[in-house]
Amino acid sequence: MAAKIISCQIVEYQGREKSCGEENLVYEYPLTIFLNGQELVTLLCSQEQADALALGFLRTEGLISSYDDIVSRRFDQSRGVIEITTKQEGQLSERLYSKRLIPTGCGSCGKGGLFYNIIDSLKCRSVVSEISLSPEQVYDFMSQTLNYSKTYRVTGGVHSAALFDNSKMLVAAEDIARHNAMDKVIGLALLDKIDFQDKIIAVSGRISSEMLLKTAKLQIPIIISKSAPTHLAVELARELKVTAIGFVRGEKMTIFSAEERIK
Amino acid sequence: MAAKIISCQIVEYQGREKSCGEENLVYEYPLTIFLNGQELVTLLCSQEQADALALGFLRTEGLISSYDDIVSRRFDQSRGVIEITTKQEGQLSERLYSKRLIPTGCGSCGKGGLFYNIIDSLKCRSVVSEISLSPEQVYDFMSQTLNYSKTYRVTGGVHSAALFDNSKMLVAAEDIARHNAMDKVIGLALLDKIDFQDKIIAVSGRISSEMLLKTAKLQIPIIISKSAPTHLAVELARELKVTAIGFVRGEKMTIFSAEERIK
Repeated sequence: MAAKIISCQIVEYQGREKSCGEENLVYEYPLTIFLNGQELVTLLCSQEQADALALGFLRTEGLISSYDDIVSRRFDQSRGVIEITTKQEGQLSERLYSKRLIPTGCGSCGKGGLFYNIIDSLKCRSVVSEISLSPEQVYDFMSQTLNYSKTYRVTGGVHSAALFDNSKMLVAAEDIARHNAMDKVIGLALLDKIDFQDKIIAVSGRISSEMLLKTAKLQIPIIISKSAPTHLAVELARELKVTAIGFVRGEKMTIFSAEERIK
Repeated sequence: MAAKIISCQIVEYQGREKSCGEENLVYEYPLTIFLNGQELVTLLCSQEQADALALGFLRTEGLISSYDDIVSRRFDQSRGVIEITTKQEGQLSERLYSKRLIPTGCGSCGKGGLFYNIIDSLKCRSVVSEISLSPEQVYDFMSQTLNYSKTYRVTGGVHSAALFDNSKMLVAAEDIARHNAMDKVIGLALLDKIDFQDKIIAVSGRISSEMLLKTAKLQIPIIISKSAPTHLAVELARELKVTAIGFVRGEKMTIFSAEERIK
């Protein structure tokens, strides 16, 4: 089953040449799993086969051992909630309790059904910044970020991220996980007492809704990536007035939101 | 600062031609953060700038607002533990409590300092399977898995995963997150009452230690990927007798562990 795709209006640059167009984005969906009446985790996922995702998650986390452990499951697609009841209710709550924190996979978030509340509460805090960049600066910042990672060239196994002001790279980091690379850059900026006002963050990996939320929380006005954003990241970027630029490759880029900052 | 690289003995195939060699792998490191005496989260990361990662994580999760909130930090590199004390100890515990589950980023795991205990407990459960594959089957399974995802070709924003027996694809799924794609495949297999004995899992994304642990827990003997594994994934694969094959591209592949299953 193919993942849902959302078409979205964008602004494209080739060199200095600007044009308008459409880009297809993959739909990103918060799915909250309740196990035996208890909120377990919220996974950010593609909407299709959400039911299978919930079962697979319970199995790989060792919370069920086969399909026969399931007594009932109820999936409310519009609310993004799946409620699962299992046989060993007692044993499970003990196991959950002893774990205390539920392991979450890539792209997951532990905020539970609160995901949309958090987005709501951020809406009043749109990013305010007068900074603007030329297309050449964006191309240059992206290329500096990608060239920073010598490890990538040797192993193909890391992501890099870097923070810029409107003239130069301030700090950079790499990690096996794209969220970690970004968090390292944030931590390095804290250690150097750099504030995030009017800065630009460049990342090698995809822009997911979590990456976009990190950017907005820090009031960073511009995020650039060589990869694609998800549809939810673009929706958030538009709400929160973050300039999200994807597919920055050589002298080409695609602007998904707040394009007035590129001049 | 460049991420640490580990050189590792591998077996390479080009078509049917086999040779031995070395491959550089990025080092993967479990870092457990204690905040005000409480175990917060374990991040799987590159070892460098672990200090900055911990600070950045606290900042992007809203647990500190600036460097000035930090009273002390102590990093024990050999144990992979960082202990941070902050000013607003009282307020923080309340905020943690009200969140209940701590959001964790990509590649993170909530198992806390127990990470190595879990690995230890798995050691006694090495994957036992007599299955073997020809190189051509591996190339074919990878190409079927990559071609499954029409969304990838349209958006560039998803990962795909599929489960095979030694002759054909059984179930397949795609998702914006590689862990979700894998969990969906597991869930689909559960729904179809397929057991995992003697099966092969193919994934488009990198093989991290978490992906490898999921594979081993289900007693799946072979995992194949078009991308790189991390060093910790390879270490685990060797301990747990999982055949881990990376860089499967066209008629080439690299075998990192338990190569006796490829004939």
